[in-house]
Amino acid sequence: SVATPSLAADALPSLNWRLASSFPKNLDTIYGAAETFCNRVKELTEGKFNIRPYAAPELVPFNAVLDAVKDGTVEMGHTASYYYYGKDATFAFDCAVPFGLNSRQQTAWMMHGNGMKLMREFFAEHNVVNFLGGNTGTQMGGWFRKEIKSVDDLKGLKFRVGGFAGKVLAKLGVVPVQVAGGEIYTSLEKGSIDAAEWVGPYDDEKLGFNKVAKVYHYPGWWEGGAQLSFYVGKKEWDKLPKLYQAAIETASLEAHVNMQAKYDARNPSALARLNQSKILLRPFPQPVMEACFKAAQEVFSEEAEINPKFKKIYTDWVAFRQNQTTWFSFAEDTFSRFNSTHKLK
Amino acid sequence: SVATPSLAADALPSLNWRLASSFPKNLDTIYGAAETFCNRVKELTEGKFNIRPYAAPELVPFNAVLDAVKDGTVEMGHTASYYYYGKDATFAFDCAVPFGLNSRQQTAWMMHGNGMKLMREFFAEHNVVNFLGGNTGTQMGGWFRKEIKSVDDLKGLKFRVGGFAGKVLAKLGVVPVQVAGGEIYTSLEKGSIDAAEWVGPYDDEKLGFNKVAKVYHYPGWWEGGAQLSFYVGKKEWDKLPKLYQAAIETASLEAHVNMQAKYDARNPSALARLNQSKILLRPFPQPVMEACFKAAQEVFSEEAEINPKFKKIYTDWVAFRQNQTTWFSFAEDTFSRFNSTHKLK
Repeated sequence: SVATPSLAADALPSLNWRLASSFPKNLDTIYGAAETFCNRVKELTEGKFNIRPYAAPELVPFNAVLDAVKDGTVEMGHTASYYYYGKDATFAFDCAVPFGLNSRQQTAWMMHGNGMKLMREFFAEHNVVNFLGGNTGTQMGGWFRKEIKSVDDLKGLKFRVGGFAGKVLAKLGVVPVQVAGGEIYTSLEKGSIDAAEWVGPYDDEKLGFNKVAKVYHYPGWWEGGAQLSFYVGKKEWDKLPKLYQAAIETASLEAHVNMQAKYDARNPSALARLNQSKILLRPFPQPVMEACFKAAQEVFSEEAEINPKFKKIYTDWVAFRQNQTTWFSFAEDTFSRFNSTHKLK
Repeated sequence: SVATPSLAADALPSLNWRLASSFPKNLDTIYGAAETFCNRVKELTEGKFNIRPYAAPELVPFNAVLDAVKDGTVEMGHTASYYYYGKDATFAFDCAVPFGLNSRQQTAWMMHGNGMKLMREFFAEHNVVNFLGGNTGTQMGGWFRKEIKSVDDLKGLKFRVGGFAGKVLAKLGVVPVQVAGGEIYTSLEKGSIDAAEWVGPYDDEKLGFNKVAKVYHYPGWWEGGAQLSFYVGKKEWDKLPKLYQAAIETASLEAHVNMQAKYDARNPSALARLNQSKILLRPFPQPVMEACFKAAQEVFSEEAEINPKFKKIYTDWVAFRQNQTTWFSFAEDTFSRFNSTHKLK
């Protein structure tokens, strides 16, 4: 291309921001979404708006990104909103809810349902402006030392699993355990936990779970389409020039689609490699799925009873989910089902 | 936000481009992707890079967008690459191939498989630089005056359907008919065609097909994830300042994710409304699907025999498809199948 004209050196402010990611650098797909985003914003502003991503836990622990943005410790974050389920279950709608939306449905709810509007209202109370920041697609159910063959097998199971799913599974006797990412492998190996879940084949292979637990269950019904989010401090956002706001808006959507494409492209060969290490790839039995679904419905009802914010969003979300799953069951699911059993050559 | 600093008035060139869309304005989701794109590019360049979208057929007919960009009649286009199947079947990989990838898989192949690299090489021969520009998801199979109950019912069926699918269906006795978008309704009403397909409920309702054909078949196995594309003239692209190139790159991906989210959010209620008009919503029978799959495989083999460009890309694509459908059959499809039969309340 021809010599590049420049933005006038003094027309736009030079800004140096810090972005705290909830993810370590070696999980390069999920951490990489922040890099994709920051690089594009820099390019769109010819280097004037420089957002530097920091991997967890360099600035703050993985689950302290919300507070860091809220308090102004950092200007931005990249995180999974359900990490803040303990503060308020409502956060989960910005990421994943058990038996919830798949990734396309989640994006549709956010962009063209009421999702973004409702979540922006909710996040405003935390001084945060939220943006889409990737989606993992339906995750795997995790790695188990023993195969889950019945609902009874869940009783007493020490499972490293996140907030919302933990609450659902506790109703069936599971003991949800919190273990920092770096310690999951050792905990599984030692047997201080019986099972652990992270995302899917590409990440799980890196984390080495297949070496210490042989049963790989699916699907991760608590993360049917787990969305990541970028957080921007409300005060900082309001001060930005319109051009910089536009750069954030568009670059976040690029990172959103790019991250999922990367996972989708990488997961199949990772699964094939894992499969060579003599793992047992098994669906959760139907009665287990049904019991978990029933327990999830109970948790939703209980939460809606006591939490008006949750109830407000759940009401909108559950109607959207019903319409989506009905529509997807026609063209989309029928096509996928046929294709999955028909090999072209 | 604070008063907005401006790009220096003389630092960047003022450009006025024309974009020819293949779509009419009333199909506001698919046409709207070009508006989303143009608005964002304008915003990112503070009005200096002004791309104006023109609906079809204002500048050129819907299927002449490729030539218009190639010849420099317009600087840009927004179109479905399989419209150019007649010139070369290879174009279809940039949009949809029978029994091909779903929308996520297509995006994954393009962004993180070899798709974009291979298609860029191919498009370069046509003086075009291609970008992702939306996806419809799996389409419906179209509107039929009589229900298709067996493979025999395809014999002699005058079906308004696009190039690649037409070639496959012709093997089973279908007579593919080309009818301009605006004339499909009348042709169906008069009975000069027996069936027609467009996209899905939201668009099809606008086009009024349910008033003249009562059987709505699914899935549209020839468009499991039909991608739209932005075309930029190669010569014009090479002359662009880097900042304007970056604006096109990121804004096209925003339009890409935004268009699909809009279709996904709008299709369910359109389908519910259509269903109230006493339509017959029916899957293609399994033997019909199997016969079409077999015919598609024959067309692929025949095309690969005579077209080295097609063969080169097909070889990469078919391996990617196999890996994707295998991987999706675990977590993703199992989750969708369960959700579609379980209503939350």
